[in-house]
Amino acid sequence: MKKHTSRNPNFVSYVKSKIEKNYFSNHIGLTFDKIEEGYIEASAPFETFIQQQDGYVHGGFTSALCDIVCGFAGYTLVEEQQRVMTVEIKVSYFNRGIGQKIIGKGSVVKAGKQFFFCEGEVYAINNGEEILMAKATSTMAVIHKK
Amino acid sequence: MKKHTSRNPNFVSYVKSKIEKNYFSNHIGLTFDKIEEGYIEASAPFETFIQQQDGYVHGGFTSALCDIVCGFAGYTLVEEQQRVMTVEIKVSYFNRGIGQKIIGKGSVVKAGKQFFFCEGEVYAINNGEEILMAKATSTMAVIHKK
Amino acid sequence: MKKHTSRNPNFVSYVKSKIEKNYFSNHIGLTFDKIEEGYIEASAPFETFIQQQDGYVHGGFTSALCDIVCGFAGYTLVEEQQRVMTVEIKVSYFNRGIGQKIIGKGSVVKAGKQFFFCEGEVYAINNGEEILMAKATSTMAVIHKK
Amino acid sequence: MKKHTSRNPNFVSYVKSKIEKNYFSNHIGLTFDKIEEGYIEASAPFETFIQQQDGYVHGGFTSALCDIVCGFAGYTLVEEQQRVMTVEIKVSYFNRGIGQKIIGKGSVVKAGKQFFFCEGEVYAINNGEEILMAKATSTMAVIHKK
Repeated sequence: MKKHTSRNPNFVSYVKSKIEKNYFSNHIGLTFDKIEEGYIEASAPFETFIQQQDGYVHGGFTSALCDIVCGFAGYTLVEEQQRVMTVEIKVSYFNRGIGQKIIGKGSVVKAGKQFFFCEGEVYAINNGEEILMAKATSTMAVIHKK
Repeated sequence: MKKHTSRNPNFVSYVKSKIEKNYFSNHIGLTFDKIEEGYIEASAPFETFIQQQDGYVHGGFTSALCDIVCGFAGYTLVEEQQRVMTVEIKVSYFNRGIGQKIIGKGSVVKAGKQFFFCEGEVYAINNGEEILMAKATSTMAVIHKK
Repeated sequence: MKKHTSRNPNFVSYVKSKIEKNYFSNHIGLTFDKIEEGYIEASAPFETFIQQQDGYVHGGFTSALCDIVCGFAGYTLVEEQQRVMTVEIKVSYFNRGIGQKIIGKGSVVKAGKQFFFCEGEVYAINNGEEILMAKATSTMAVIHKK
Repeated sequence: MKKHTSRNPNFVSYVKSKIEKNYFSNHIGLTFDKIEEGYIEASAPFETFIQQQDGYVHGGFTSALCDIVCGFAGYTLVEEQQRVMTVEIKVSYFNRGIGQKIIGKGSVVKAGKQFFFCEGEVYAINNGEEILMAKATSTMAVIHKK
């Protein structure tokens, strides 16, 4: 994976200021564990409210987690005041999720001027074993400040 | 849109029994407004907890809503005891979401034996105006009872 | 489907000038049957060279056809000298293709300033019956002239 | 990348027998350079007929190449007489393609019983430099012999 350089020297505090006000990611139980240039890691405990009717992680939680880690991975690279918006995202579901903790990893794969290509992965940690639940690919638009 | 025929005469109660235990869709505020053969409509009020940092609907909520209405649209057609699981979903974001109510519509477009192709749409209702926020296409696998 | 207005009054001749030099679409047998604002229709006879090993239309031909009709649908709307490039495309395969003629239809669904959302459909005409082979969704970038 | 084991000890000759009759992949100039368990590599010289109107590789060629290497990667793993068909494919275009040779690489990422998740990459070789043109993710169905 190519290393990216942020256009914002204060990207950690900029991303944290966005995360703080991101009501939906808080509502679904996410904590942000890594904020690096072009990379975000977030996780959630296996609460009942992220599950579907058979006791597995809900696919909607998984797609939301992919969107969140991809989007904030984009935010680590843009200039102060620029914003990142999802143009489209595709999520493929590899394995059912069950365990104690769910982890999402988002990376910027290519950072263009107008949009970024990002990729996400979601893992379930089940008794120490890491299961790949889903992979995502996404296009993110960079919204320039006015 | 072609009309589908359910393989389950009791599909309404079957789908309702699944929705009831779907913790995640309850957690993000969804109510199910229509349960028809091959079609589901669900909505949520514009609560703060479905928003991102700029006051718009979070893209992760939108993708989750697409997944939920597409998946339950699949559930309306399968046999009692069969289940439906998302293989993959792609969501394209057309417009930002703001308003008083968010509506998701999911349809089965083609019902094969082993998997269904579904499509979803998400609208924001803002002062009576209906804005198309997102469109989704999805592949759902039919899990046969053992 | 919302009607679009081209930013180029001479869009028909502009698109034709692009099609003429589009070696790949000629190579795979395409003829362009309709060039309208935000809409393109192209077709090919069921030649052996568009088939795979079982005598059906090759999925790669189908995805190429989707890309071509979506891309040129975008070209009908842009200004003279602007170009349209595919950011991403997803194709879902509904039915195998066999028959006498294959038709692709591409539409711009939303025309933004920087990119367009397009949708494609591919049909096989088999003894007068029209079979939906595939549906596509695509993001196209508008490349502004320098 | 996890190593896969074919369900067919004669997978090389089985795949070759399919490639031979694959008219479309021949028509667009492909040669198959590697046939391994869960992995296919194919390439084409930079002929005029794979180009679009600006002298770059046509996006439709690229999506077709992704479909072909992903599909045949699936064919390396199935039983004799089983077939592999594309359910859906998404291609993201990272860079324009220009050079002397185009290479496609397809891998099976997860081999389930009923379907495979595959990923593809397309590179342009330009004066010895390798440029990543596109990445693809795909779902392939395993068609069981009757």
